Amino acid sequence: MTKYASIEWANDRLRLLDQRQLPAKTVWLEYSDYQAVAAAIREMVVRGAVGIGTVAAYALAMAARQSKERDVSALRAELAAAALVLRTARPTAVNFGVDIDRVIARISDPSLCTANALAAAALCEADAIAESYVRTNIQMGIHALELVPDRANFIHHCNTGGLAALDYGTALGVIRIAHEHGKRVHVFVDETRPYLQGARLTAWELQQMGIPYTVIVDSAAAHIMRMRKIDLCVVGCDRVAANGDTANKIGTYHLALAAHAHGVPFYVVGATSSIDMSLASGDEIPIEERPAREVTHVGETQITPDGAHVANPAFDVTPSAYITAIITELGIARPPFGRSLAQQKAAAKGAGSS
Amino acid sequence: MTKYASIEWANDRLRLLDQRQLPAKTVWLEYSDYQAVAAAIREMVVRGAVGIGTVAAYALAMAARQSKERDVSALRAELAAAALVLRTARPTAVNFGVDIDRVIARISDPSLCTANALAAAALCEADAIAESYVRTNIQMGIHALELVPDRANFIHHCNTGGLAALDYGTALGVIRIAHEHGKRVHVFVDETRPYLQGARLTAWELQQMGIPYTVIVDSAAAHIMRMRKIDLCVVGCDRVAANGDTANKIGTYHLALAAHAHGVPFYVVGATSSIDMSLASGDEIPIEERPAREVTHVGETQITPDGAHVANPAFDVTPSAYITAIITELGIARPPFGRSLAQQKAAAKGAGSS
Repeated sequence: MTKYASIEWANDRLRLLDQRQLPAKTVWLEYSDYQAVAAAIREMVVRGAVGIGTVAAYALAMAARQSKERDVSALRAELAAAALVLRTARPTAVNFGVDIDRVIARISDPSLCTANALAAAALCEADAIAESYVRTNIQMGIHALELVPDRANFIHHCNTGGLAALDYGTALGVIRIAHEHGKRVHVFVDETRPYLQGARLTAWELQQMGIPYTVIVDSAAAHIMRMRKIDLCVVGCDRVAANGDTANKIGTYHLALAAHAHGVPFYVVGATSSIDMSLASGDEIPIEERPAREVTHVGETQITPDGAHVANPAFDVTPSAYITAIITELGIARPPFGRSLAQQKAAAKGAGSS
Repeated sequence: MTKYASIEWANDRLRLLDQRQLPAKTVWLEYSDYQAVAAAIREMVVRGAVGIGTVAAYALAMAARQSKERDVSALRAELAAAALVLRTARPTAVNFGVDIDRVIARISDPSLCTANALAAAALCEADAIAESYVRTNIQMGIHALELVPDRANFIHHCNTGGLAALDYGTALGVIRIAHEHGKRVHVFVDETRPYLQGARLTAWELQQMGIPYTVIVDSAAAHIMRMRKIDLCVVGCDRVAANGDTANKIGTYHLALAAHAHGVPFYVVGATSSIDMSLASGDEIPIEERPAREVTHVGETQITPDGAHVANPAFDVTPSAYITAIITELGIARPPFGRSLAQQKAAAKGAGSS
């Protein structure tokens, strides 16, 4: 059995903490079918680049363990089809696809000559992916320590803690590790419309950790900075292009513009697996458009007139010019990012961490 | 009887369209007591600088008409006390206080020597205030026509139409008048958290006018600009300092930063009565902090954990460096605003419009 903040694997089943119902209710849902897991990823039962990558890997392991197929080639074909279904659940995060590819690569090993061996290998790979994320999270937080002053006032967007990223998380991991190292920190929590990951999830996680925080609406961040209340911004990332342009939750770019205007350092925190060297710039990153209902309703309350036309881009791209540094498990990458990210990516390949 | 989009005066009573319940329900509330009107202003039954100014003026007229006091001096003292109660209902808008002062000045006229004459004068002044706002709105929209290209894609923050400002409104009036003059327009409507004036009210008003619109979350504005979808921003104002710094609904400054980064013109629309020459800069404008519940709940749905700490500044200040022009009833004021606003203010005084 493996258990993280929002993901549990036991008896060949995957259990997910239903993040749609937090903070009102703590409900775990059980899955025994990869197609249901793909739907859960799409519907944001689980979310965050690390969360969905890990869950997709376990979903493939689950598909392998539960298949009745005994022929190894046929089983591989079955899992390739499952990978395709999972991969299309969310389009923007890059390591999501990388994690799926890792499991597929592992089961392609020709020395796996029985269905059981293949299924065991898939599970082993899912476990390795999860463990590597946990290690990575902690490394990022440690690297970031030198950037965090004592009595730091953070601003944080979306949700990037254990719920999104297994345990410490990425940007929230930086805050947590600073806190655990005795730094006095306070966090301004962007509520993160439309899905309210900040108000619902980040506030809940900070409360559980005993870290003081203040929830604000997203559009108040510039005002709070103007009042000189922010020392640094930390955000996660769904995909980083070779030049440092970063796709992350909608509103990240807005926040970066405010930080830039006020000389507040703006840090992106993410594993090297989030860096996609195949993309020259952020213009090539596809932006997921999510259902209008996320904007038109909060809970059961309808906030727009009937028939309102809505646009709901789930992510935006922050041009690298607005990013002070990108913190990965290998250290702090600074501009020019074209060079620093390429170095990190090469080092990650050498270390086998990506 | 006098009737505007959200305010009605008939038989010495004030009726207000309850904007808290829009767009779900259209409910008119009736008031016969100025203290209840002060509460309605505080609780945002009515809102917007023009809306609350007009309502406060009528509330004073109502207090005068309903008073049993027959002694003119005593009645004046009674109304001065009422003015004080009304004035403290909302702290940020400037013309709110100006409108109250206008009624008080009018009833100070020593030639008013009966209680009835005084009450009639108060009502007369309230009517004049309302009519002058209506005229002002139309003038602003006409002046702005030259700034609006055909096939214009606007972005608009908060609610500045008839609900907030009697009929045409300020920023929304610019859009409506451009539409009425045959320009093809489309409006990106910032939802305007926390109170959702954009999603609830502006979308509703645009729908009623048959103007196409798209609701977005506030933090998506920068992304939409990056996609080159915005031609101009229009916002209202609650108070403009002598140097052009502008206090308006929280999120206005954030939007201005995004517009600046993308070279999108950013226009503030407001009457000269919103210009407060007694303030050298926006740093002197008091910012109202509103109840946490506006952030923690949407309708009955609680979105933050129990006990969450919240900051809810209702306004922010946009430094004049980010403002392309300020459109008043007297024309288009451009930088340097110190000079152009002083000229407009002097002209307004000359014309008796402020």
